[in-house]
Amino acid sequence: MTKYVYLFREGDASMRDLLGGKGAGLAEMTRAGAPVPPGFTITTEACNAYSANGALPAGLWEQVLEGVADIERQTGRRFGDSSEPLLLSVRSGAKFSMPGMMDTVLNLGLNPGTLAGLAALTGDERFAADAYRRFTQLYGKIVLGVPGERFESRLDALKARGNRQDTDLSADELRTLTGEFQGVIREHAAIEFPEDPHEQLRNAVIAVFRSWNGRRAVDYRRLNKISDTLGTAVNVQAMVFGNLGPTSATGVAFSRNPATGEAKLYGEYLINAQGEDVVAGVRTPRPLADLQAEMPDVYAQFAAIANQLERHYTDMQDMEFTVERGRLYMLQTRTGKRTGAAAVKVAVDLANEGVIDRATAVQRVEPAALDQLFHPAIDPVARAQAHVLTRGLPASPGAATGQVVLDPDTAEQMARGGTPVILVRTETAPEDFHGMVAAQAVLTARGGMTSHAAVVARGMGKPCVAGAGDIRVDLEAGLFAVNGSRIPAGAFITVDGTTGEVFEGHMPTTEPDPGPDVTTLMEWADAYRTVNVRTNADTPADAAVARRFGAEGIGLCRTEHMFFEGTRIDAVREMIVADTPEGRRHALAKIEEYQTADFAAIFRAMDGLPVTIRTLDPPLHEFLPHVDEEVVALAETLGVPAEKLRARIEGLREANPMLGFRGCRLGIIFPEITEMQARAIFNAASLCRRDGIDVRPEIMIPLVNTPEELRRQADIVRGCAAAAGFEGYSIGTMIEVPRAALVAGKIAGIAEFFSFGTNDLTQTAMGISRDDAAHFIPAYIEQKILADDPFQTLDQEGVGELIRIAVERGRAARPGMKMGICGEHGGDPASIEFCVRAGLSYVSCSPYRVPVARLAAAQAALEARERDR
Amino acid sequence: MTKYVYLFREGDASMRDLLGGKGAGLAEMTRAGAPVPPGFTITTEACNAYSANGALPAGLWEQVLEGVADIERQTGRRFGDSSEPLLLSVRSGAKFSMPGMMDTVLNLGLNPGTLAGLAALTGDERFAADAYRRFTQLYGKIVLGVPGERFESRLDALKARGNRQDTDLSADELRTLTGEFQGVIREHAAIEFPEDPHEQLRNAVIAVFRSWNGRRAVDYRRLNKISDTLGTAVNVQAMVFGNLGPTSATGVAFSRNPATGEAKLYGEYLINAQGEDVVAGVRTPRPLADLQAEMPDVYAQFAAIANQLERHYTDMQDMEFTVERGRLYMLQTRTGKRTGAAAVKVAVDLANEGVIDRATAVQRVEPAALDQLFHPAIDPVARAQAHVLTRGLPASPGAATGQVVLDPDTAEQMARGGTPVILVRTETAPEDFHGMVAAQAVLTARGGMTSHAAVVARGMGKPCVAGAGDIRVDLEAGLFAVNGSRIPAGAFITVDGTTGEVFEGHMPTTEPDPGPDVTTLMEWADAYRTVNVRTNADTPADAAVARRFGAEGIGLCRTEHMFFEGTRIDAVREMIVADTPEGRRHALAKIEEYQTADFAAIFRAMDGLPVTIRTLDPPLHEFLPHVDEEVVALAETLGVPAEKLRARIEGLREANPMLGFRGCRLGIIFPEITEMQARAIFNAASLCRRDGIDVRPEIMIPLVNTPEELRRQADIVRGCAAAAGFEGYSIGTMIEVPRAALVAGKIAGIAEFFSFGTNDLTQTAMGISRDDAAHFIPAYIEQKILADDPFQTLDQEGVGELIRIAVERGRAARPGMKMGICGEHGGDPASIEFCVRAGLSYVSCSPYRVPVARLAAAQAALEARERDR
Repeated sequence: MTKYVYLFREGDASMRDLLGGKGAGLAEMTRAGAPVPPGFTITTEACNAYSANGALPAGLWEQVLEGVADIERQTGRRFGDSSEPLLLSVRSGAKFSMPGMMDTVLNLGLNPGTLAGLAALTGDERFAADAYRRFTQLYGKIVLGVPGERFESRLDALKARGNRQDTDLSADELRTLTGEFQGVIREHAAIEFPEDPHEQLRNAVIAVFRSWNGRRAVDYRRLNKISDTLGTAVNVQAMVFGNLGPTSATGVAFSRNPATGEAKLYGEYLINAQGEDVVAGVRTPRPLADLQAEMPDVYAQFAAIANQLERHYTDMQDMEFTVERGRLYMLQTRTGKRTGAAAVKVAVDLANEGVIDRATAVQRVEPAALDQLFHPAIDPVARAQAHVLTRGLPASPGAATGQVVLDPDTAEQMARGGTPVILVRTETAPEDFHGMVAAQAVLTARGGMTSHAAVVARGMGKPCVAGAGDIRVDLEAGLFAVNGSRIPAGAFITVDGTTGEVFEGHMPTTEPDPGPDVTTLMEWADAYRTVNVRTNADTPADAAVARRFGAEGIGLCRTEHMFFEGTRIDAVREMIVADTPEGRRHALAKIEEYQTADFAAIFRAMDGLPVTIRTLDPPLHEFLPHVDEEVVALAETLGVPAEKLRARIEGLREANPMLGFRGCRLGIIFPEITEMQARAIFNAASLCRRDGIDVRPEIMIPLVNTPEELRRQADIVRGCAAAAGFEGYSIGTMIEVPRAALVAGKIAGIAEFFSFGTNDLTQTAMGISRDDAAHFIPAYIEQKILADDPFQTLDQEGVGELIRIAVERGRAARPGMKMGICGEHGGDPASIEFCVRAGLSYVSCSPYRVPVARLAAAQAALEARERDR
Repeated sequence: MTKYVYLFREGDASMRDLLGGKGAGLAEMTRAGAPVPPGFTITTEACNAYSANGALPAGLWEQVLEGVADIERQTGRRFGDSSEPLLLSVRSGAKFSMPGMMDTVLNLGLNPGTLAGLAALTGDERFAADAYRRFTQLYGKIVLGVPGERFESRLDALKARGNRQDTDLSADELRTLTGEFQGVIREHAAIEFPEDPHEQLRNAVIAVFRSWNGRRAVDYRRLNKISDTLGTAVNVQAMVFGNLGPTSATGVAFSRNPATGEAKLYGEYLINAQGEDVVAGVRTPRPLADLQAEMPDVYAQFAAIANQLERHYTDMQDMEFTVERGRLYMLQTRTGKRTGAAAVKVAVDLANEGVIDRATAVQRVEPAALDQLFHPAIDPVARAQAHVLTRGLPASPGAATGQVVLDPDTAEQMARGGTPVILVRTETAPEDFHGMVAAQAVLTARGGMTSHAAVVARGMGKPCVAGAGDIRVDLEAGLFAVNGSRIPAGAFITVDGTTGEVFEGHMPTTEPDPGPDVTTLMEWADAYRTVNVRTNADTPADAAVARRFGAEGIGLCRTEHMFFEGTRIDAVREMIVADTPEGRRHALAKIEEYQTADFAAIFRAMDGLPVTIRTLDPPLHEFLPHVDEEVVALAETLGVPAEKLRARIEGLREANPMLGFRGCRLGIIFPEITEMQARAIFNAASLCRRDGIDVRPEIMIPLVNTPEELRRQADIVRGCAAAAGFEGYSIGTMIEVPRAALVAGKIAGIAEFFSFGTNDLTQTAMGISRDDAAHFIPAYIEQKILADDPFQTLDQEGVGELIRIAVERGRAARPGMKMGICGEHGGDPASIEFCVRAGLSYVSCSPYRVPVARLAAAQAALEARERDR
């Protein structure tokens, strides 16, 4: 005979699969000696058996009755007995918490007979009448499916007579109301309200089982990726009452402060109330500290139990309790949810208190939660009153406020004058870069989490809301329209890149203060970490920020962002339009001076650490204007006929720029570009070395498909190093097209390191343009065709397989070869975990993600250690 | 001591590596008993030793002298002897023929002393003087590097006096001319003309060795992908003279007609001439048939030798011969080059004659050579006089003439009136389809061998010249400009898609007549073939053509081309603009009727053969207009506000359409499209089956990345089949993104067949947009970074590796799984060879490539058989 029923004292915390989270918690508390009202749990297996057959499995009911008998023995009361009636609560409890599912039926067991017994037993007729009212209402709603408002409207009407609260209703009134409720049930469910307590119990259990496959529960599970096959457990427990007068109470509490992590009980309670009253919010609960004055003994007992449970579970607990006429009962305990700041403090404190070890502390903090600690947030008071204009994707975290500007030049101009601005664009392109630098935040109407705006903003640590689809930017009218509002340039808006919200008006923001605990936790994390964490940084400023955050080098320095600054773009354009290598060299000479200075500044910022510099990557048309007015102006600047410039622009136009004339293809067709960049790198490096800087340049060739491409580019780079008399550098390549991964063995014959460009590798391996993915990726995720957006979390099965192949073939040719990742995935915890498993040497991410990556890498190393045990 | 010199009787045909092609031929002829003037060959190893050290290797000269002594013994003459002088020819001869390299020095050994001897020996003073003139001239030019025109101008000046030919010059005049030539040499090369025959020989040998690394030879080898390390051999041979009067002659001949393959000697000769006179073209040679009348014995002997050599080499021979005073000498034999038609006829005839077996016959014909047999060509006489306007890529073979039209609507209108038109466009898009159907040929300014124009034209067997970059189409002016000419609409042009040439004016074309030998050869080929050959066909007409060419089914039927015909496009556009599934279904219902009829017609054409139908693939914006005028007109037709239509078009715009919202992604977001198509397929199939047609539909889902995508689409298809009560179909998928190849094992759990879409697989695996590849692929091939254009010949190392992985993983999950290829590579012989090796079940190509594919597949099978032996 399958065991379907476990008394609380028979279970423990490890049995979550079978008993659900709540049941396992009640069992564990019982074992720990906490004052838990007696009860039992019906297993998830029973639920699954019911779902499969539509009937309670054989033997279940008998076991339930035995369980009830056990409660009777422990409480000395009898279920259905008119003199000393036992009342029960019936609560669902799945493995994972599922708010919004069917939850609780209280006071089960009441009928006209037991009602009288309850009144006599408690000496409180009004209490008993109210209990019966509550039971009828909950049973009607939850077990019989009568819409809740059918009851509430009657209750409200009664209270409206004389403008009263629940507690003001008399016993008579409550009895009359209960009769009315039973009439509602008769009308709606076409049955008499059942008086038999066992029938009540049986129906309540079945109702909980059925709720597992109810629409709300199914939707919730789909949304939260919870398996449909888990089933729910049912907890049946003796009722205790927090509403038996002024010495009774009910409350919820955390063993520490879940917002700050402070090591102090935190919670709230209501005198003379049942749990549902706290949730309903009709009366305002009081802070838990007051309980210390009001019921000092109870408080002391609760504090001791809370402390005991925390030590027992080795983590901050979220507890429910009830005080019945001065006696404390524990109704639930679970690990409490917390903010990022609290997560860090609790983990560090628990380790310092000796409750957990440091490895556990490192594993306790969700890496993504760190993100909020390093960015400004909107003042919570102001936020509560603000008007949300629209929502987009939370593309780069943090909050900022400023005046709307619609073009990058104005942004730069206003910012120079000290005005904070928010750049609002349909989408951004590389030529908007200076405007993004100038702005406090960026808001775009189009583009996803990995659009240009998102990537650049994250790189700079600036808030960005991307793909706010309701926005229409109207440059001519000088405004943007959104959901019926028209926001002119110059108006204040506030952008929250952590949530994706956009607010009208100027809102105060709070500055981030990560505090010393973060530093402690990161130090602990670094002790376990097995891969290096580098940063993607294009400027000395970014490099410095990243280094402060613990970056151990630059994994990707994009040289093209430098091309847009100030007047450099003119020289770049002159180079592109030139017809001959000489013409290009003439223009490149102007850029070389800037690049040399840029590289030198970056080398200084990264003194002693490796700096991976990627040669020119984007297609040339990204540097050219596309509006005819600008084309004519540029033609004049360059002194070439406008017609010629138009023809050049037209000639460079591409059907699929992502797969076009870019990456090392540029350097092969125009070797003078690679020459210029290599010269600038080695001249800058020589300069710095002369000044005593420890320079470690790594030159990286992008978009390589064949060993031969790399060989040609490497020859140029080596030639420039020799000419500059510079030694002590390395040459490597991006692995960012599938072919490169497949022929990695041959490429490793030339490359000294690989860096997986997982943005492009994802685009090519899956045939998905990240700029165009919005047409179907969200629907794919919703329909569960994809588990995650592959541009946020690495597709381990496909893209990851290419990485595994490249690692294997590359290292076979060059044992111990250094390999890293520099795509957006380098800052994503799940992807970092993969990188550690795949044996990469480092991950590289945007500066503000460095702490996240350090923590995620440490956790991955700890997981690997556990797997290996 | 290395053996550097081989007497002709010591070598044979197998020693091409060592003796070069010419030397091996002379040796083999000698062994076969043909009358070859005695001689020897200096090996390619000697050449390589010279190249490495800059000096003749030790022992070589001694071996040469022994060789000369052998010639002396056989001819009874002495090298440098004044009474019976032996003269030698010195000719280079590499493994592969390299026209344009240094070739021949004749009459070597002459000096004032031997000259007198030669005159006495031949009794012809003028002949001897002319021989000395020729020798001086050739030696000066070839060995000493004096520019040839320095000699020719003096010869021409002499002939101009009295308007004479070479043969009119007197012995005295020739002697004077020779003196002048020696003066030129003295002046130019600053040396006295060497009189010592051994010095002459040594210098000539060194000159041949040096020519191997001369600029022309190096360039030639680069162009023809011949290795630089082969080296050239040198053939030293006793001179025989075709210019010793009326019973002497020289000529070249083929053992069969190289243009038609007719089994009859074919060639030409000159009486009283040396070989160089035939090549120089001063006198018009006579057809070989005349020799039969003029020198019947010699002709009979030559015919017998030609026949003997042909049997010996088992192939058509290209021979050089000389008749010296009635005695025949064979100077060279090699396998003759031939046209496609001749290749087929010679192979079939030789097999029928029992000279070769059928397998060899099948292997003898270059598959690509078949192509010319099935397409019209420009009349060769007209071609010789025509003006080439410009050149583009030979995108689809065949020739056509017609009036220029610049837009598809006019093309359709004029063609309906019976006017032949050539559609000239900057590039074509799917909406030009009806214009391409109407046109005789297509000419585009942009796009490569795999551009839309090229692919569609090849599919229809229509000539196409693509990417003629000099062309500027000016729609407003109603003309196209090219290299200074302006060709108005309505003017006649002629397009040769086999060569890529475009001609001004109307030119007659010749109709193709492949003849019965092709049928025979194809039947033989089919007996060896191990993979099926299918066709890519979208219309019943294409299907019928392909079937005539031997297609064994349709491997790819694209449903979207049907969407453009007539008024269907309006319904398609209505569907795209609709906001709701209902709106889309309403529009789709209109298309369904057409699709059903189309599918039924294709099933009928393919009675008894499988038909693979791909569901909708291209991005939706390809179906929408982009010029605002057309947008406004469409908005009116559809009855929607223009603003809304503009917004929809803008919303569908993509940065990288190749990686965008297309393929099965469409069918997943809009399942009603797949439903409509599946319904049309099964209704058409049921209809045909009722009429007794053997229908074998295979439904193919494009651009699948994950098993889940396929599962969803397959569910829809299966549902429609069940609704139509149709059984006996299969569902498969395209493998056209790398991820699909990697997870092929899981996809094979659902797919019943794979079809490798190698166009897209190449684009994604290599990260190269075929539409944009022109920026760098030509340079990559020129620089030898790539061996071939990967869109023409499959990249076996990268893309091929993905195919191998998919075959292995797919068949592991579904043993014996059917797999084919339907990209452009399905018609490329080298790619077909790979497909056979990779174990694919079929290849599918455009209808006109089917014979090519059948032959290539047979050859691949024969190669595999040989490998396995």
